[in-house]
Amino acid sequence: MERNDAHALDDIIAALPADILVTDPVSMEAYRWDRANDPAAGMPLVVVRPTTTEQVQQVVKIAAKHRTPIVPRGAGTGLSGGSTAVERGIVVSLDRMNKIEVDPVTRTVTAGPGALNAEVKAAAAEHGLWYPPDPSSFEICSIGGNVATNAGGLCCVKYGVTTDYVLGVTVVLADGRAVTLGGPRIKDVAGLSLTKLFVGSEGALGLFTEVQLRLIPAQKQPTTLVATFPTLDAATEAVLGIIRQMRPSMLEFMDQPTINAVEDATKMGLDRDAAAMLIAQSDEPSGAALDEIWRIEEICNATGATECFATDDPADGEAFVVARRMAIPAIERLGAVLLEDVGVPLPRLGDLVLGIAEIAENNDVTIATMAHAGDGNTHPLIVLERSDPAQHERAHIAYGEVMDLAISLGGTITGEHGVGRLKRPWLADYLGAEVLELNHRIKKALDPDGILNPGSILVPDKPGR
Amino acid sequence: MERNDAHALDDIIAALPADILVTDPVSMEAYRWDRANDPAAGMPLVVVRPTTTEQVQQVVKIAAKHRTPIVPRGAGTGLSGGSTAVERGIVVSLDRMNKIEVDPVTRTVTAGPGALNAEVKAAAAEHGLWYPPDPSSFEICSIGGNVATNAGGLCCVKYGVTTDYVLGVTVVLADGRAVTLGGPRIKDVAGLSLTKLFVGSEGALGLFTEVQLRLIPAQKQPTTLVATFPTLDAATEAVLGIIRQMRPSMLEFMDQPTINAVEDATKMGLDRDAAAMLIAQSDEPSGAALDEIWRIEEICNATGATECFATDDPADGEAFVVARRMAIPAIERLGAVLLEDVGVPLPRLGDLVLGIAEIAENNDVTIATMAHAGDGNTHPLIVLERSDPAQHERAHIAYGEVMDLAISLGGTITGEHGVGRLKRPWLADYLGAEVLELNHRIKKALDPDGILNPGSILVPDKPGR
Repeated sequence: MERNDAHALDDIIAALPADILVTDPVSMEAYRWDRANDPAAGMPLVVVRPTTTEQVQQVVKIAAKHRTPIVPRGAGTGLSGGSTAVERGIVVSLDRMNKIEVDPVTRTVTAGPGALNAEVKAAAAEHGLWYPPDPSSFEICSIGGNVATNAGGLCCVKYGVTTDYVLGVTVVLADGRAVTLGGPRIKDVAGLSLTKLFVGSEGALGLFTEVQLRLIPAQKQPTTLVATFPTLDAATEAVLGIIRQMRPSMLEFMDQPTINAVEDATKMGLDRDAAAMLIAQSDEPSGAALDEIWRIEEICNATGATECFATDDPADGEAFVVARRMAIPAIERLGAVLLEDVGVPLPRLGDLVLGIAEIAENNDVTIATMAHAGDGNTHPLIVLERSDPAQHERAHIAYGEVMDLAISLGGTITGEHGVGRLKRPWLADYLGAEVLELNHRIKKALDPDGILNPGSILVPDKPGR
Repeated sequence: MERNDAHALDDIIAALPADILVTDPVSMEAYRWDRANDPAAGMPLVVVRPTTTEQVQQVVKIAAKHRTPIVPRGAGTGLSGGSTAVERGIVVSLDRMNKIEVDPVTRTVTAGPGALNAEVKAAAAEHGLWYPPDPSSFEICSIGGNVATNAGGLCCVKYGVTTDYVLGVTVVLADGRAVTLGGPRIKDVAGLSLTKLFVGSEGALGLFTEVQLRLIPAQKQPTTLVATFPTLDAATEAVLGIIRQMRPSMLEFMDQPTINAVEDATKMGLDRDAAAMLIAQSDEPSGAALDEIWRIEEICNATGATECFATDDPADGEAFVVARRMAIPAIERLGAVLLEDVGVPLPRLGDLVLGIAEIAENNDVTIATMAHAGDGNTHPLIVLERSDPAQHERAHIAYGEVMDLAISLGGTITGEHGVGRLKRPWLADYLGAEVLELNHRIKKALDPDGILNPGSILVPDKPGR
């Protein structure tokens, strides 16, 4: 059967309630982009905003029949273009499926994909429980998107990433069937690990309509240390020393351009001359947090920190964490940005950070680097100067060079944002032809016609891409 | 191409060094079984004990050419028959590939699949680091087998299962190619989650020749509580109360038949009249462990514990943990056993434990139940009386009824041992036809000729099984 988008649109309008369909081009505009702002975004046929799994199934069945591509989206905060609309495709926005139900006895939460990460955290907190994964965008990103990208965050250095908390998913497959994988069982090894396979599949294998997540008891009030360093080396040395001995609940890094952008935005009195800053937290119980923070301070001093400030006042500590979370918006004030997400094995963190500074200099662009340092996961932000096409070209060259550098250091092109469409051109270089081919085999097995989010991670018909 | 085992054997003998081949029937006997002692075990063509990834590739290429089945094995401690030899198949024993290399800076360990879990723990400990997953058999089970079954253990209630520690694997695929998935990067979302898919695949998707595991800083000395209860209900109520509020580093359960079998073997003075016993540990730092243990004691007392004994003496505490680890061998003294591994969502633990006692009574068999109670994962051991065929039949009926009961309670047929061959007949009932079919699709995509461990988890040519 040939692709027939016009029939798909007719069938959708006939089968689904009008109030869940968006068809006028102006209203659809908001559903064409995620935060990657991919200029190649297409204009969809229709945006569907289902409220039930059955409606998602109906849409997918129609799409399957007419071979029309589907792009799922949550809150549209993706950073790699995984939710960029494709031309004359169907956008399925899961924002309305946002019910949250906490079961304090099994310590699990069942959530619709459209529920925000912050809403899941808040619902858990009502029962003295905690959902740890915390992307910087946690107040505005959806839990379905988090599961689809296997999102990370700040506390992952101690508490792991999204997949470590996913116990089950209900997923609509490429043929419109809905299946539930896993469930509220902490241990379950019956059959292949399909739940884990779907986590991080960026919409290419199915559409989540419900997720079940593990919760843990509420985090203890953290103690915080902020340390500034005269050189990048001194800061990354401190990170290695810390991780070798302990598990801080947060270990974040900001370089000089980042510190300055945050200081411009907050006027909180950060040291503009510091080459780098670390923010560490410990949430150990009793006096153990302070002990851990003191040991961290010792390490920072030993590697040459110019200043260390420790506090067990939650508000003081939170101010620094907020500053770190503001880093991306603060840098976005300087211009549009190309947001990187490269990660390396921890011993190469210094080489990565220094190499990025070199790439910035060589290409005459500003790159502000912040990092979930304890994970070796960095976010170099390449600033695009408005109305300077030559600079844009240099910035894009730098963007690719940063990924090439990460690969050369044994690192990954994406630690927590996903491949989406933006990083797809580098995926083959990173995975190698054989592992890429395995990805295609799995895709083909679960979505033989390639209708699910084509172009995100993989281009179904192009095994080399 | 037709299956041609004789040619496969000729090719293996021609291609591989004689000192890694076992072909005489007497020596091969030891490689036909795992601890499931499946009476249907076949006689292999040859047992290969490779020392390099390249040798594994050679064997698999020959097997692929002649369509001869391959059964991989580690230390042969599997409990579900995942390493049962198939008639005229090739057994690949990975026991010689047991190199271990710890990188304390990345806090990772690279291990051959044949390295024992205890050896990995010991190597990590030399650097002040810890590999948490701890199947009761940790002293004799292989790390490759742990990854292949996504093994659990006692500390998983706080520290998670094997998959939570697997960062990367080198795997030989069904066509003999070797690929490396993942690596020593804490966060990596580039491409589909293939590493996680291979964990727990029980040899049905590939043969691991190297694994990379995450380590964490050494565990703190635990504080221990032992509590006895007059009824099963009182014990399971205590479990729910504990898990709702905190994360003990161990929360184990033994019922009366288990207590008595352990007491027979150890004479350590356990209360033979108790209906159930809990062993809880806390490894929180500073005074927090004792605080946690006191809160656990309070809960146990509130649900009706007859006696509680708390100790922060490591040797005293370890004695109870050893007693728990001895439970399976202690029961095996009573006769051969059918070892169950069913798990339920925590609130159904009481129903499961009571239901198992009822199944034992109805079928006139002894079932001793121990459990990783905090996970809802139980191990009912059904005792087979020697030389009583009628009793054997009743025991096998009870074995099936326990799984049916677990499924009816929203539970799983296997929490940590794997499906293997023993539990395969129940997999369709548990997963349902649609999810089973997804398993087959993935199997077909990665092993189109079905040569990898056929009959473990799935029967390649029988989509309904």
